[in-house]
Amino acid sequence: MGHQFYPTKVGDYMTLEKTLLMIPGPVNVSPRVLRAMAKPVINHRSPEFGKRTLEINEMLKKVFKTNNDIIILTSSGTGGVEAALANTIKAGDKVLVCVNGAFGERARNIAEVYNADIIDVNADWGKAISSKDVKEKLTQDTKAVVMVYNETSTGVQNPIGEVGEIVKQTNTLFIVDAISGLGGHYVGVDEFGIDICVVGSQKCLAAPPGLAFVSISSKAWKVIELNKPRSLYFDLVRAKSFLQKDPPQTPFTPAVSTFYGLHEALKIVEEEGLENWIKRHEIIAKATREGIKAMGLELFADEKVASNTVTPIKYPAGINDKEFRKTMRTKYLVEVAGGQKQLSGKIFRIGHLGTVTSSDIISTLSAVEMAMNDFGIKIEPGVGLSAAQRVFRG
Amino acid sequence: MGHQFYPTKVGDYMTLEKTLLMIPGPVNVSPRVLRAMAKPVINHRSPEFGKRTLEINEMLKKVFKTNNDIIILTSSGTGGVEAALANTIKAGDKVLVCVNGAFGERARNIAEVYNADIIDVNADWGKAISSKDVKEKLTQDTKAVVMVYNETSTGVQNPIGEVGEIVKQTNTLFIVDAISGLGGHYVGVDEFGIDICVVGSQKCLAAPPGLAFVSISSKAWKVIELNKPRSLYFDLVRAKSFLQKDPPQTPFTPAVSTFYGLHEALKIVEEEGLENWIKRHEIIAKATREGIKAMGLELFADEKVASNTVTPIKYPAGINDKEFRKTMRTKYLVEVAGGQKQLSGKIFRIGHLGTVTSSDIISTLSAVEMAMNDFGIKIEPGVGLSAAQRVFRG
Repeated sequence: MGHQFYPTKVGDYMTLEKTLLMIPGPVNVSPRVLRAMAKPVINHRSPEFGKRTLEINEMLKKVFKTNNDIIILTSSGTGGVEAALANTIKAGDKVLVCVNGAFGERARNIAEVYNADIIDVNADWGKAISSKDVKEKLTQDTKAVVMVYNETSTGVQNPIGEVGEIVKQTNTLFIVDAISGLGGHYVGVDEFGIDICVVGSQKCLAAPPGLAFVSISSKAWKVIELNKPRSLYFDLVRAKSFLQKDPPQTPFTPAVSTFYGLHEALKIVEEEGLENWIKRHEIIAKATREGIKAMGLELFADEKVASNTVTPIKYPAGINDKEFRKTMRTKYLVEVAGGQKQLSGKIFRIGHLGTVTSSDIISTLSAVEMAMNDFGIKIEPGVGLSAAQRVFRG
Repeated sequence: MGHQFYPTKVGDYMTLEKTLLMIPGPVNVSPRVLRAMAKPVINHRSPEFGKRTLEINEMLKKVFKTNNDIIILTSSGTGGVEAALANTIKAGDKVLVCVNGAFGERARNIAEVYNADIIDVNADWGKAISSKDVKEKLTQDTKAVVMVYNETSTGVQNPIGEVGEIVKQTNTLFIVDAISGLGGHYVGVDEFGIDICVVGSQKCLAAPPGLAFVSISSKAWKVIELNKPRSLYFDLVRAKSFLQKDPPQTPFTPAVSTFYGLHEALKIVEEEGLENWIKRHEIIAKATREGIKAMGLELFADEKVASNTVTPIKYPAGINDKEFRKTMRTKYLVEVAGGQKQLSGKIFRIGHLGTVTSSDIISTLSAVEMAMNDFGIKIEPGVGLSAAQRVFRG
């Protein structure tokens, strides 16, 4: 079964420093970003921190391709989605929610908690939502359309460009969970007509987890400002008013160190350039898919709408998910994710987002080949690697 | 006017590294804690992170003096207070809210957002809430009593021990915002009968900001489990169910790096010992008050109920708050806080919590003496320092 390098003990952080984190977020955070977080924690209402906050805000606007306001919340991405709904939806409001995976379901859960009158638009898991279905179910009194852009659970991109085109001609708000998509795909928030766009720090932008970014269009502000907020912590009007103070600040104490990390992570994006950053994700995703197919394994998602940031792979019959991923992790030091909800045990997912390189993908595919071999699936050594390399060579 | 050391430019982080942060949170974070945060970001659903989470949980229980469950939220302390109310209160429920400062007002705001039927118990800012007033207004159908323990805006401790004694004999829940108090004062969560106790990471425990801790008694769980949660992000039942998984985890991606920092910060508390940790806060608070009084300045809060973690001081007539604090910060490299809401411009506040030492207080008091002198208030050099030192000598 080959020599085992670095036998892992659970809780052994030394080994973890040699382990590739290839899950769809959080992602490997650059040492530069980790070092930035070691700056002293300062007063969150000081001019220095206000200046830093504004800088981050401007950097985020470039990444979002928007002139809209951006609010930074100390929460996970889900907190950002909750903020979007808590500020726009009144009990009984008609909300069209698109569901084709676990994160669509989560958005629907939030709409339920806020007592929305939910109109469902579904697609099979692994397929994209049809913009035609959205158009058909959209009515004059639909308050909002909620769509997950990059469905992390299935590796599918939903058609936010097409849906944005439809919704922008109405009074309905277009709310997009782009948590794991923006930065790995081209998302033009203003161009697509996204009224509220939510992104998480620990995904394509490769910052540490703990922050959510919420962009808000003037069309959305008009709705929000007339509403009574249904959460204090997620009150966007309050957040905006604090951002406009001198110095700019947040209503409640923010995760100061994570802001430092985010600032450095965004500088790294700027250095590569957003266009190159996205292009890298695209190439790496394609290399991953070609590598997997060359091994004779089956992709889960419809390739026409495949995500640039996560690739789910169907398990060949007879492979136990937990055992396989344990082998990947402890023997080959590559951590991949399992399936969620109804896909649990049926697929594994390779996350390839953030500062991911061709070396990371080659290492990951090699670990998949060897682990599959350990489980009795015959794969010619290196067949996936050469296929991936062909993509990298262009 | 004396020689100016280290002339500060706004945004100059080198100078900030020489600046004492003496605000009531966030606090100076130990370099040990900052270094701990530089560990690689790992999978938040891995056994390693689960193990770390459980360790933190057990360490927090010791600090809270509780056997109750503790949920860690990626949010500010205010998010923790919102979680407490969002899970226990239905619209129209009678909630007794104690207000004698800005954080009491904030708790009241949250109760309003959740449409509680609010019964007010007030006290003048600078005075403590009377437990007798709580007892008088408490009725059989009061769902919860909400009290801020350490009112950071006024430097006053409220009588949570007495109120706990009253409430524990009823069906009412006792919800305490101990965000800036626990760790700097003795708070026996179980002994006092606190059903939900909320604490923030960036206060007495000297971890970086971004996490809130919420302890929940079995009496509170009984109420919570019958309720429909009014927030998904703050759904405590969901959080508990994820903590019970193997490996233990959070429903949504937590601030992984901040967890590392918190773990190290709690180790530091254990090394000094909680009892010594609290005793240090008590001595330092007393030294601060004696130093201030010896300068001829006036304390804002009733000394009988003075906080161990923050000391508000009335400005002598004619001193401009912004100018004074700017001098403190740029000339003497000590950052203190201003007043909040109705106290803005009238007081300044020295925060002395976390890993604060006698040197920190001596430096701060010296800066106050010199800055006051700059503004024409005659204070004999060192008069406050010698008074403080007398307290330290015991």
